[in-house]
Amino acid sequence: MKEQRNGLLLVVSGPSGVGKGTLVKALMERNSRIKTSVSATTRAPRPGEIDGIHYFFKTEEEFKGMVDRGEFLEYIHVFGSKYYGTPRTFVEQQLSEGYDVILEIDVQGAMKVKQAFPDAVLIFITAPSMSEIKSRLIGRGTETMEQVEKRFATAFEEIKMIPHYDYVVVNDMIDKAVHHLEAILEAERCRTGRSAYLTEAIEEIGR
Amino acid sequence: MKEQRNGLLLVVSGPSGVGKGTLVKALMERNSRIKTSVSATTRAPRPGEIDGIHYFFKTEEEFKGMVDRGEFLEYIHVFGSKYYGTPRTFVEQQLSEGYDVILEIDVQGAMKVKQAFPDAVLIFITAPSMSEIKSRLIGRGTETMEQVEKRFATAFEEIKMIPHYDYVVVNDMIDKAVHHLEAILEAERCRTGRSAYLTEAIEEIGR
Repeated sequence: MKEQRNGLLLVVSGPSGVGKGTLVKALMERNSRIKTSVSATTRAPRPGEIDGIHYFFKTEEEFKGMVDRGEFLEYIHVFGSKYYGTPRTFVEQQLSEGYDVILEIDVQGAMKVKQAFPDAVLIFITAPSMSEIKSRLIGRGTETMEQVEKRFATAFEEIKMIPHYDYVVVNDMIDKAVHHLEAILEAERCRTGRSAYLTEAIEEIGR
Repeated sequence: MKEQRNGLLLVVSGPSGVGKGTLVKALMERNSRIKTSVSATTRAPRPGEIDGIHYFFKTEEEFKGMVDRGEFLEYIHVFGSKYYGTPRTFVEQQLSEGYDVILEIDVQGAMKVKQAFPDAVLIFITAPSMSEIKSRLIGRGTETMEQVEKRFATAFEEIKMIPHYDYVVVNDMIDKAVHHLEAILEAERCRTGRSAYLTEAIEEIGR
């Protein structure tokens, strides 16, 4: 049986403040086979940011050209000004080299990726309860109560999308949540739909 | 969020000689939450076998009565004489107490369990290749070449059923295969379809 195979495309979403970034970082530190995608953006590079490493920096014209040519798995246009997108080629190349690729994107982006890549594994990361989500939003202390209420309402809208995801991971203790993510990766590699076992057995018997 | 929840029903099948029994035993030794089901049979107890522990020993009349009352998840009638079956109540009781239950049954039985229990997780255990399956059958040294060929043909028929299973676990190294089984269990507990997260979030917000 051949060892080399395509990596898995993982899509991670969830309300802000539930620790998606921390989880993804911890997962990647423990698994060298996992890569994040590099997004394209029209915003200016900040000091220290390197093109092709932190982002692919594009002019608005370049970005729109990529959109027209269908070169994005998903993209968003935020605050009426800047664009962010996930370039399809970069992701496909990593996958074909056998790396698992993880995308941390919003629920709308996740739905688009699932359409473009039906094999993608969609994971919703959340806090143990709604009250915990609210505490975490308040605990950040960076927003007014009005902003907290708005973010909380958004969080609830996102949670309603859970049925469109394959897995829900509750980020209660980070080690436990990372372990869940690792188990999901390992289990997904054993999924019948991804296995070449039957095809190869038939080929072998046919010899 | 409530901690207590139903266990998972795992169904394990695969060609003879691939080490299903060894894997299941190793998995159970490492996980106290997993139980195997106790089968009912019409064969006589062997020395040391205890009713309700090793088997539920039944007369043919009792067994047929259970069949008629739909008390089996699946049953087989082997060699034209003895019956073996998986009692539904026993399995359901373990699951409702939060234990995961593992059934080691053949492909026909697995299909029946999936019908009765659509939530069951079906895992196909096999050896790395068809030639490896043949070597293992020959290596046992307990059968004639004719019997080996017959078992090998049966193995191939079983392998053709892989698309009806959720997962394929290749038993190459036992520790690795047990780890795959554990990952499948952990991942399945995170499956959206089994999660009460959304329902509970809606209840919480409704308060």
